[in-house]
Amino acid sequence: MVRKPELLSKKLGLTFSDPQLFALALTHRSASAKNNERLEFLGDAILGFVIAQKLYDRFPEASEGTLSRLRASLVNESSLAALARQHQLGDYLVLGSGELKSGGFRRDSILSDAMEAVMGALFKDQGIVACQQWIEQLFAEKLAGLSTLSGQKDPKTQLQELMQARKLELPEYTLISMSGLSHEQTFSVKCTIPILSDTTVGAGITRKKAEQAAAEKMLELLHKVNQ
Amino acid sequence: MVRKPELLSKKLGLTFSDPQLFALALTHRSASAKNNERLEFLGDAILGFVIAQKLYDRFPEASEGTLSRLRASLVNESSLAALARQHQLGDYLVLGSGELKSGGFRRDSILSDAMEAVMGALFKDQGIVACQQWIEQLFAEKLAGLSTLSGQKDPKTQLQELMQARKLELPEYTLISMSGLSHEQTFSVKCTIPILSDTTVGAGITRKKAEQAAAEKMLELLHKVNQ
Repeated sequence: MVRKPELLSKKLGLTFSDPQLFALALTHRSASAKNNERLEFLGDAILGFVIAQKLYDRFPEASEGTLSRLRASLVNESSLAALARQHQLGDYLVLGSGELKSGGFRRDSILSDAMEAVMGALFKDQGIVACQQWIEQLFAEKLAGLSTLSGQKDPKTQLQELMQARKLELPEYTLISMSGLSHEQTFSVKCTIPILSDTTVGAGITRKKAEQAAAEKMLELLHKVNQ
Repeated sequence: MVRKPELLSKKLGLTFSDPQLFALALTHRSASAKNNERLEFLGDAILGFVIAQKLYDRFPEASEGTLSRLRASLVNESSLAALARQHQLGDYLVLGSGELKSGGFRRDSILSDAMEAVMGALFKDQGIVACQQWIEQLFAEKLAGLSTLSGQKDPKTQLQELMQARKLELPEYTLISMSGLSHEQTFSVKCTIPILSDTTVGAGITRKKAEQAAAEKMLELLHKVNQ
């Protein structure tokens, strides 16, 4: 049985003037044509803004690239699903019978979407300031534990984590050439990821450095596809 | 000669308490290590939020997919560059000598980034309400001219526009099979885009419908890669 949304709003520290809005945020598209997808769209945008602003203030010396990586490390499907689980949000989701049977209330994507929809609902109910405060509180611990280092993983690690997050096969690195004398060799490495037909090539004075360079170029290529 | 930022802020209808912040928004990374990239990160997030909110209110019946497409049609590199050009923003950009020589002040990406950086600067200077009002004013005409139809282009058109926006080669459609009697045939069409190694296949009762179905699957696949 799905639990009453009031119990969850209490647990989340929220009081809604319009409880229907909160109930809508917990309704998955499998249950009704009136579902949380629009609120999720709104919540996603608000969350992106609130976290961008916190990071901008918190790390005055960080580059745009570092800020983007920090945000991606804070806000992603699995981090949002974890926050949802902390508050047993799954117990309050309204799902269609198919999703219910297949355990949709445990699924990262459904939990994460509902979490964003709750943010959207709070914004519609109480405006940006209240919503911002709640999101900041929700992420307070994570924000406190953050250092610019967490956004500065090396390119190979970043690429690997990206592939894992998207449930794609991992990148492959192939040595394509070595040149020069032993104390001043140059290595060339090709990076391939199954989903892209393009490959990238990096060079470096060690094989590892060449791999990192190839990974960095692949991240740039993915960024281009992603825009 | 680069013109004085005060002239531009007047033209944009803005008065900055901290004119340095506005000057920073106009400084490209080619000119200084202290440049507009951080403000652009912030502005991009604010813009996404402000437009999401406007669209949510304006189109109460639109699906999340339609809202996303509407936002992408309003907010993209070329629309932001066009807004920048309307206000001659290029004349006020601070660029490094290389970018200056190669005409960086005319480039979409540089203009669009500076436009977002101005939004970020305004937010830091005057807070979210003032920034929101200014963005809404900037997009007022475009928002007024919008209908949910503009977000409901057919999948082939959407895919083509996406490839064009990313300056990638256009998708190709290949008929792979036809089956059934003449009045109840089923067509299968494969969609290929050069950047992805995966292809998608769509089926339909006409070749055109099969192409649309294949394009739709390709959009979904790109969405997955994009997340």
